[in-house]
Amino acid sequence: MAADHSAIPFTDLAGVAELVRAFPGPDEEAMERARARDAELTKPRGALGRLEELAIWTAAWQAAHPPRAARPLACVFAGNHGIAERGVSAYPASVTGQMVANFVEGGAAVNQLCRSFGAGLSVYEMGLDQPTADFTRGPALEDAEVLRAIAFGMRAVEPGIDILCLGEMGIGNTTAGSAIAAALFGGMGADWAGRGTGVDDAGLARKIAVIDEALGFHGPALADPLQVLRRLGGHELAAIVGAVIAARMLRVPVLLDGFTCTAAAAVLWKLDPTALDHCRIAHLSREPGHQRLAAAIGQRPLLDLDMALGEASGAVLASALVQAAIATHNGMATFAEAGVATAED
Amino acid sequence: MAADHSAIPFTDLAGVAELVRAFPGPDEEAMERARARDAELTKPRGALGRLEELAIWTAAWQAAHPPRAARPLACVFAGNHGIAERGVSAYPASVTGQMVANFVEGGAAVNQLCRSFGAGLSVYEMGLDQPTADFTRGPALEDAEVLRAIAFGMRAVEPGIDILCLGEMGIGNTTAGSAIAAALFGGMGADWAGRGTGVDDAGLARKIAVIDEALGFHGPALADPLQVLRRLGGHELAAIVGAVIAARMLRVPVLLDGFTCTAAAAVLWKLDPTALDHCRIAHLSREPGHQRLAAAIGQRPLLDLDMALGEASGAVLASALVQAAIATHNGMATFAEAGVATAED
Repeated sequence: MAADHSAIPFTDLAGVAELVRAFPGPDEEAMERARARDAELTKPRGALGRLEELAIWTAAWQAAHPPRAARPLACVFAGNHGIAERGVSAYPASVTGQMVANFVEGGAAVNQLCRSFGAGLSVYEMGLDQPTADFTRGPALEDAEVLRAIAFGMRAVEPGIDILCLGEMGIGNTTAGSAIAAALFGGMGADWAGRGTGVDDAGLARKIAVIDEALGFHGPALADPLQVLRRLGGHELAAIVGAVIAARMLRVPVLLDGFTCTAAAAVLWKLDPTALDHCRIAHLSREPGHQRLAAAIGQRPLLDLDMALGEASGAVLASALVQAAIATHNGMATFAEAGVATAED
Repeated sequence: MAADHSAIPFTDLAGVAELVRAFPGPDEEAMERARARDAELTKPRGALGRLEELAIWTAAWQAAHPPRAARPLACVFAGNHGIAERGVSAYPASVTGQMVANFVEGGAAVNQLCRSFGAGLSVYEMGLDQPTADFTRGPALEDAEVLRAIAFGMRAVEPGIDILCLGEMGIGNTTAGSAIAAALFGGMGADWAGRGTGVDDAGLARKIAVIDEALGFHGPALADPLQVLRRLGGHELAAIVGAVIAARMLRVPVLLDGFTCTAAAAVLWKLDPTALDHCRIAHLSREPGHQRLAAAIGQRPLLDLDMALGEASGAVLASALVQAAIATHNGMATFAEAGVATAED
């Protein structure tokens, strides 16, 4: 992808799949240099645990050593869902737009977290007055809409950033995320749906029912992961898919926020199980399906703090771990520099 | 305790126990104000999970609302252990002093982490040329030594800091920590000992053997938690106990680093199960006994990153979570301020 983001290298969903299957791998040389330095730092081998893995991973996917973490960027995509009309959320759909205004005013959780950890924040409102169609009666998005949303998400990834924190806002979108997870990995609504923003028992039952309806309605068409995204997803979820794609091509490691964000990205994993190797799940959501979803794509979330907010809050929080990983990797003295005896001495 | 730290309010171990049993509780008013504000912030109730708990906890133990996180301080205490002569570590005892020099030069992991998260760092070398006695043959410390070390740790807590991150450095001190844990909570060496800095199978067997020897040697004297500290502990472990005491009195919430630090602090829990309510275990260590130890004192560590470095590294990393908790609690808009509909609207 060109640095000016002008060239979107596909014209249909088959083109997206082709692009994903041709993703570049990790940079072996940067990874090797990171591993070699890690082994020389003044600590017992492995004593920084997952921070060491994060430093090596960042180098591998930035294709650079030393790895960098000075410029994290959070992108939050917001969209509305026709399914929200079916009473699946504790909040009315109007809250999506109200929360976007809160992001713009700087009053939301993600604003404070970005300030705490020096991350930039871009918020994208994706036609909130044009919700997706009710996915129990037809595809949530038209072909042209899903392609446009993927391309939109791709353009959101600014070249030169070091870490991309992805998140979403959209009343009704844990229902969409649960439906996507069920379509990709099997099971029914009850296996994946949780309380989202805090829906009551009756709301949870409605949520489970609409997911099961949708799985029945779309049937075999859901064998194609990108059809899952189109038929059950949403504007903001397709944008997340686009951002994950662009980040891979621009060599930017990605932190995926909780359940809904992971569900969107999992569409790419289903196309190719190496497609999310440049991504880490930032935190394990309180949403009960997230553990199963993380296991399905072979990842262990970095944080586990009972959070379930979305809006990239967990991803920005986890960016502090990446910053810590890079700071220790780049800044620590080696055994030789510090004159510290090694275990073998 | 006076702000000038001059008055150490005990003259013997019985006086320490008395002080602990008279600890002040949480500030109910500050806690209530924090809970009330938390309920009004623009997020579904509980959606920030443990960050919300941390904000309320910080207010309760700072006895102030809004809570503060601008001035975190890491204190690292270093000491040497006679037991290191018994081949229980992968590293020679000289590494304790070499690592202290590395802290002073700014080359260690904790230096980079403090820089990343704006924490101050104080490193205290506690007579490295005077290691504790071999605890299989007598008490590790004399009465006067343990009292001096506790008082030393108390003086390290500067008034005016917002969060205290505690850590240690001492070749051989996971053996001491394991012995303390076994003495306080039952079990033998094999139930508590791990590989520490990376000791091999033979070293692990020696570690287990010396712990079992010590448990047998000291016998019923270990029924008194402060005797456990004196007989099996070390200068740096007693200093941690002192710092935890002073922090309670000075209204400073504490983040305990991994296994060894938790083991030292657990002496106070055994004196009074509310004595560590102003402390949180920062991270679950890779050291296998830590899970059991955390469960024994009824805590769930904040992070779980396979770390096992000590030197307050996990505590400083977790201070980023406290900063995030305070930033969101203090900075977010309320539903009313942002004009966002609540779930009940």
